[in-house]
Formats: sequence, structure tokens, C-alpha cells
Amino acid sequence: MNASGVPAIDAGVDCNHDLSYDPRTGRQRGSVPHTAPERVDEILRRARDASSRIAGTSPATRQGWLVAIAESLRNRADELVQLADEETGLGADRLHGELAKCATSTIFYGAVTAEGSYLDASTEGIGGDSTLARWNTPIGPVAVFGASNFPFGFGVIGHDVASALGAGCPVIVKAHPAHPRLSVRLAALVADALAAAGAPDGSYDLVVGFDAGLQLVDAAEITAVAFTGSQGGGMALVERAAARGVPVFAEMGTVNPVFVTTAAAANGAEIAAGFVSSFTLGAGQFCTKPGLLFAPAGAGVFDAVLAQLPQAPQAPLLTAGIARGYRAGLAGLAVEADTETDAATATPTTADPAAGYVVAPQVFLVRMKDLHPGSPLLAECFGPVALVCEYEDAGQALDALTRLQPSLVASVFTGGPADPESAEIVRRLLGQVGRVAVNAWPTGVATSWSMQHGGPWPATSRSDATSVGAGALGRFVRPVAVQNAEPAHLPVALHPDNLWHIPRRIDGRLTLPTE
Amino acid sequence: MNASGVPAIDAGVDCNHDLSYDPRTGRQRGSVPHTAPERVDEILRRARDASSRIAGTSPATRQGWLVAIAESLRNRADELVQLADEETGLGADRLHGELAKCATSTIFYGAVTAEGSYLDASTEGIGGDSTLARWNTPIGPVAVFGASNFPFGFGVIGHDVASALGAGCPVIVKAHPAHPRLSVRLAALVADALAAAGAPDGSYDLVVGFDAGLQLVDAAEITAVAFTGSQGGGMALVERAAARGVPVFAEMGTVNPVFVTTAAAANGAEIAAGFVSSFTLGAGQFCTKPGLLFAPAGAGVFDAVLAQLPQAPQAPLLTAGIARGYRAGLAGLAVEADTETDAATATPTTADPAAGYVVAPQVFLVRMKDLHPGSPLLAECFGPVALVCEYEDAGQALDALTRLQPSLVASVFTGGPADPESAEIVRRLLGQVGRVAVNAWPTGVATSWSMQHGGPWPATSRSDATSVGAGALGRFVRPVAVQNAEPAHLPVALHPDNLWHIPRRIDGRLTLPTE
Repeated sequence: MNASGVPAIDAGVDCNHDLSYDPRTGRQRGSVPHTAPERVDEILRRARDASSRIAGTSPATRQGWLVAIAESLRNRADELVQLADEETGLGADRLHGELAKCATSTIFYGAVTAEGSYLDASTEGIGGDSTLARWNTPIGPVAVFGASNFPFGFGVIGHDVASALGAGCPVIVKAHPAHPRLSVRLAALVADALAAAGAPDGSYDLVVGFDAGLQLVDAAEITAVAFTGSQGGGMALVERAAARGVPVFAEMGTVNPVFVTTAAAANGAEIAAGFVSSFTLGAGQFCTKPGLLFAPAGAGVFDAVLAQLPQAPQAPLLTAGIARGYRAGLAGLAVEADTETDAATATPTTADPAAGYVVAPQVFLVRMKDLHPGSPLLAECFGPVALVCEYEDAGQALDALTRLQPSLVASVFTGGPADPESAEIVRRLLGQVGRVAVNAWPTGVATSWSMQHGGPWPATSRSDATSVGAGALGRFVRPVAVQNAEPAHLPVALHPDNLWHIPRRIDGRLTLPTE
Repeated sequence: MNASGVPAIDAGVDCNHDLSYDPRTGRQRGSVPHTAPERVDEILRRARDASSRIAGTSPATRQGWLVAIAESLRNRADELVQLADEETGLGADRLHGELAKCATSTIFYGAVTAEGSYLDASTEGIGGDSTLARWNTPIGPVAVFGASNFPFGFGVIGHDVASALGAGCPVIVKAHPAHPRLSVRLAALVADALAAAGAPDGSYDLVVGFDAGLQLVDAAEITAVAFTGSQGGGMALVERAAARGVPVFAEMGTVNPVFVTTAAAANGAEIAAGFVSSFTLGAGQFCTKPGLLFAPAGAGVFDAVLAQLPQAPQAPLLTAGIARGYRAGLAGLAVEADTETDAATATPTTADPAAGYVVAPQVFLVRMKDLHPGSPLLAECFGPVALVCEYEDAGQALDALTRLQPSLVASVFTGGPADPESAEIVRRLLGQVGRVAVNAWPTGVATSWSMQHGGPWPATSRSDATSVGAGALGRFVRPVAVQNAEPAHLPVALHPDNLWHIPRRIDGRLTLPTE
């Protein structure tokens, strides 16, 4: 594995290339050739061959690989951010922040790997007549389909790649067409960093093009797929991979609700400002965007949101397709939303070709009775738009909210610990989301031991999985057991002297490594 | 929830009943009415309503429920075994053993529940400005589709029911048509035991009939499905439930291989005897049956197996359908197997209608070159039949073996710790099975902390899951997180004083409860 294996940037333009566009102008700027089927086959073979070699490395070794990737990214931050900004228009500040977080997260996944709990190592009866040992083994080569909206967080680098490598799996990434030139550059950096750190040939590679992606999903060598993106794309992958039993961890995103309690409404203006900041962050292109806010009627929250809106930035969306989808989504919402609030449609979206994919943020007031399952109001509209529903009765609003599709995250704004409503609201929301943020906006996702970034279907395809945080490694292992093992049959994880210093379960008893 | 909710045994015979047959005679003996759709709806509503009440109970409380079930089973062992034997023909010894193991396992799942590691409780930043808490919450009502071949192990009682209840989920079982009268009796006992132990109404129920089973799979209230049975049945459930994202934990079974090394062949006669005992156990109706044994040529293993075969019992299969399938499977194997070994077909199977579903064990010698993917030799034939392949070259045999479909389990017989082949064989087999038994037959499955009873697709639908052992609870929970939680938002699992005395992760550090 080395940088030479990554396709070069090519200025040619045809159907065999991913074309790179500048979202601020809509102009094309370079392209990247699609990976030929024979080349994908070769990449798959190398990943398969690398599997057992990687599985035989220690957690500390793989931690070293992840640290090397993070250092390489940090060393090229300016160059990478500039390239990313050219293709995504997300702006240098946001992109510097995302890249820095990616480096920190990659190092975190290395620490989780070395800590070793994810191995779930367990033995019983050792020394007796009947013994049993169980541990988690890497599942095998993983295909990663990254997101348009997090060029550094979910894709060629980021959570999926780092957690899969940490768990001991080779990774093959499919480049997202929203940033093909960045993908090629990042993949070369990762490949070089891994090679320099001693990772086996075949540990990591990139393919470009829709057909190359399908080839991965159908390949016998691929044992798991991680996907971040639209519900349509995710479910298509889930169905395709189901035919041969390959798990697809698809993080798809639905409408994330926000509930403002009666007691919290005293801070209505502050909440309105925070809401606008949150749903317009990154031009609203977050799977954790707060899409629908419930606030008590009479607190003026919708009016305050409307008043804030002009201060929100007009920013380009990532691609022409996303911009088209956003405009179509707005048109649909305008039909369904409360037509008496003309103010909601007072901010037109830009459709000037010279301005690229720039759009204006938008908000709609909706009536509770229109929030029924299947309503267009409850479909995710990717971009800087959100809905507000003002309720007369908190109980009715909570009932309406818990009829929504499950989502990744919900926020609750309370009047503080004494707020009589808040405990019941959190409890009910936990029945339909992966995470509840209390008095905080949903858009911030920490990479830590306690994070859960997932949710019941259709927010994700696997509600037991998380794509951020320590649990992310668990997607890429499977348990195995050996009965009556001789010492040579056991992994280092179960060596009598606990050579890796990991938590283990011995005869049913969880034991911590000695310091 | 009480016994009156379970359908009564009915002597009538029509398409609205599951008919009970005696496998030893093939005669019908009673029947059980199918559950009406309205009644299934009511059962589903009660399970949904019970969900949050069960989720609010402590692990110790649910441990008490499981102990109560186990005691009830033990108190009625003679009655239950007699009823089971009438419907399954498995014999009193086997059934007493299975019932006793079920009681022990049920108590074990209670202990795993109380130990609390399955909750994966974790907090960080408590006391600071930014906090995060994560734990596993019960997934919701679980539908269990049990197996024909383990009336006490996988179905109305057993691993799925006990692990789901332990994890905090209501359970609705679909009665297996192979033993409808037993199912009704067992369900009444479980319901009564749970009610007496204080479990909420709706914690457990039974439905009867194919249509009632489909209604469960399609019901919005059902959040997970556990299935044990054939690949056809399991995959149909997986596909049907996939449409709404419901996880199906299907344990389907394929051909489990056995590898005898060159060094082990000195014990060829002993291995042959053990092989016959193992593949004819329970009339070969085990998902862990050793289906294909590789032995060195010249060690006489096949001849020894043939010689042992007449001593193996002729026993009834569970149902007329299984007996038909077995005979058809044998005919297919006879066409594909080594036709020069007429001895292999010297033991005809019984097809005398007066003998019910009784069949004779059978073994075939097969050639390595015929063991290609898709060969009928490599399809599971449910019943007391197995194949032997005598190899000239251990490396070639291992290559052939690792081209088989993944399976639940494999056995390896070695010449002891000094056997140079064994470590590589175990390592390679772990790539395609859930468990490797060394110098032991695969048919015994311990219920313990280190057991893994699962395997890569198509042996199971979820290679990360186990249907036996402590990990079984993990199928029925999903993680949730609360950010900036106030004390009232946190579960007891994360109470500052660790009221449940469970392992927890605090600020990234795994901590054990103090004694």
C-alpha cells in the first residue's frame, strides 16, 4: 500500500470521472478517474490478504498507526482545508475545526483500541477438564461510504476508518463525488502514514466511482459496510448487502426534534437564537440538525426565530443536486406549512446560477394537526431549513413528537432541575432516539466513551450500533469461542499474563488489568 | 398476564388448529386452536404497555422472575417431559436433561442480568459543565420463533425467552407446530410463574399458528425477533422484518465440519465411535451436528464409522415433514457421494408407515473434489446422517474445508499440544465459524459467560450475536445517551452510589462495584 496506488487527479471530463465543482460558483475544477473493475479486484485481494496480518497485530501497534494518521493530517492542515474548501464551500473555520476534531478522534480510537475492552476477552475453567475462551475477532475488510457533508469526519478519514482500523480490519473507502480531489489527496496521506508506521500492504485503499462502490458491496472479500448519507442511498445498500448477509451500518438521518418546555419558554429569545445557529450550521447539512422545534404558544419563539433569520449566513450547499433537493423540499414545505404566516416565505432562496449553490436559510411555522406520519413536513430536508410548531398543550405536543419517525438525537430545553415536565419528556424521547441533549443543541457530537450516535430505524439501519465514540469499534468485530483450547490456540488477548493489560472476564468475573 | 390468556387444548381438527402428532406412530393426538388476529392484537398491545414498566424494574427484580420460572419448570419436570416425549419422541432421558439445563440456564441469565455488565453504563464529566451518560436500554417487545428440535431450549422457554426477559423486554412466543400441546402447557406455567413473581401484565404470552406468527413479525409493537430453525424459514423472516428495520436474530445452521489431524488419526476408532454418537444424538436433529468429518486416508476412520453405525439407535424424527426431508436428502446425497462405497448405502432408512417417523442413521464417503460450493453434499440434511472425507494431503483438506459455508461450530481432533497442525487449523476455522471445539464434539453447548453460539452468515443472520451464553442479552438492548443530564434524567444504573452494584465506566475508566 502506498500513494502510488491512489488514482491521480485528471483534468479530463467524461462519464468515467468524478468531476470536482466549486459550490460557490458552480464551476467545474478538475476531476478524478473512476477506478477500473480490475483495479478494484486487486484492491479487494490485497485487503483480504491483509486481514489476517492486521488481525495478528497488537492493539498498541494499531494505536500507533492511528496516531501516525492523525499526525499526518495535522501536518497538512492548511493544504487540506484549502482543498476541502474549494470542493465543499464549508469555509476555512469550519473545516479547520473538523480536521482538528478528526485528528483528535483518530487518536481517541487508538486509545480505545489499546484499552482493549472492545475485545470482550473471557475465559473459564482454565486448568480444569473443560475450558472455554471467547473474544472478539476483527470481522474482515470493511467498505466505507462516506458523507458529502463531513469531508474529514465520515469518509476517507474519520470515525469509520479509524474505528475499523482500530478494531483490526482493512478498510476500502469509496470516494464521495462531492469532494473527489480531496478524497484522493487524503487517501494518499493515509496510505503513506500507514505504510510508514508499518501497517501491512492492503490495510487501506480508495476507490472512485459509483460502479466501483457497487463492486465493493457485492465483493466476497467485504465483510461489513459503513455508510453515512441519505435514507435512499442507505437503504439501497442495506438491501443489496442483505442478499449475502453483510452487515451495513447506515447512518441515515431523519428529522431531529427539539422540545421547549413551558418553564423554559422564559428564555424564548435565547432559544430562538440558538436554534437558528444550530439549524444553519454548515448550511444545515448535518445529520444532527434540529429540524422541528416545539415551543409553547404565546412565548413568541417563532417570531424570534424569524427575526434572527436574516442574520444567519447565506452559504453554498455542497452540490448542485443538494441545492436542487433543498429548493424542491422548500416548495413542498411551503405547501404544507401554516399558510397564514406569510413571513415564513419572505426570505426567498437564491437560484442565481452565478452564485453557485448558495441558498438562504428558511423556517416554517407548522400546525400540530399536520404532523402526521407520512407528512412531507416530517421528511428530512437537507439544508438550512427548520420548522417550528407552537403548542397550546404540552401533553399533546409530546404525543405529536413521539409519533415522529425515530431520529439520531433530540434536544430538550427545560426550566432547570425543578422543571416538572423534563424527566418524562427525556424518558419518552429516549424511546425513539439515540441521544437526548438537555439544554443543548443536538449538532455537537463529542467523540468519547459515552457517546451514542445512532438511533432506531430508519435513523440508522442498526440501532445497536454507534458511528461515533468508543462503541464504534464494536461494529467491526464478531465474537468467537474455542473450547478446550491449548495455549497455541488462544489469542494474546487471553494470555495468562495479560500481556496487553486489558480488562478480561475470568470464570465469569470481570477483572481489571493491574497498573 | 395469567394462564387463562393461553389457548386451551382442543381435540377438534381443522385448518385453524395446530395438530399434535406422536412421532413414534405418526398418529394425531389432540390439537391447539390458532390465535385469532384480534387476540394477537390484544397481546401486542399488552406487551407494548408492559415495556416501560419492565424497563423500569431492577436487574435483581427480573432475576427473581427468571428464578421463579426455573423453579416452576423443575417442579413439573415429570409432567412436562411426558408431554414433550409424546409430541417429539426424543425420549425421557434426553428431555429430562434438556429441561434441567433450561432451568439452570434460566437461572444463569438471571445472574448475568444482575451482574449488570450488559448495561454498559458509562458517564463522563459529571460535576462539570458538559456531561454525557450512556447505557443500554431494553429494545422493546421481542417475538420468539422457537425450534422444533429443542422444545425446552429454544422456544416457549429457554435461551431466547430468558435472555430477553433478563434484558427487560416483554416476550411473545410463537408456538412451534411440532409440539403445540407442550407449548400451551409451558406458556401457562411461565405466565403463572411471572404473575406470581410480580411481573407486569403483558410481560409474556404465546400465539399459535402461522398467520399469528406473521402478524407478530409485521406488528409495529415488535422491536426484535429471535428465530431458531431452517435457513429457508430464517431468511424469510429476515427479509420480511427488514422492510421496517426490525433486527432478526436467526440461528439457522449449516454443515458443521470436523477435522482429524494426521497425528490424531492414531485414535481413529475412538473418534469414529464419538462421531457416530455425536451425529446421531437426538436423531441428528441438532444445529451443532457434525455433518462432515475430514480424516487422513489409511486410518480406517470411514470403515470404523460404518462398523459403529448399526449400534446407533433408530429413532423417530420430530415431524412427518422432517422425515420426508431427511429421506429426500439421503437420496440426493447418495447420488453425489462416492458410489464405489456401496457399504454406505447398506443401511436403508425406514419408511414403514406403522413406525411413524423412525429413520435409520446413515453415513456417506465423499470425495474431496466433489466438495465445491453449491454441491448438495454441503447442504444441511436435518437428521442422523453425516459425511466422511478421507484426505491424502492435510493442506488440501484444510483448503477444501475452508471453502465450505460458514457454520456455527467446528471440531478439531489433534494429537495434543505438540501437534504441529492444530494451531493453524484452529486459526483458519475461526475465520468461518463461531466456535471451535478442540478434541471435543460440537454438539455440547455450555450456557456460560464465554460461550459463543452463532456464526457468520448464513449460519446466522447476525454474526455479532450469540443465542446462548451471557452475550445473548446483548441482542435485546440498544444504547442511548443523555447529554447534560439532570439527576432525574439518569437511570438507576448510573446513580452516583451505584445502587445496582454493577461495573461502570466513569470518565473513560472501567470500574468494578465494591463488594
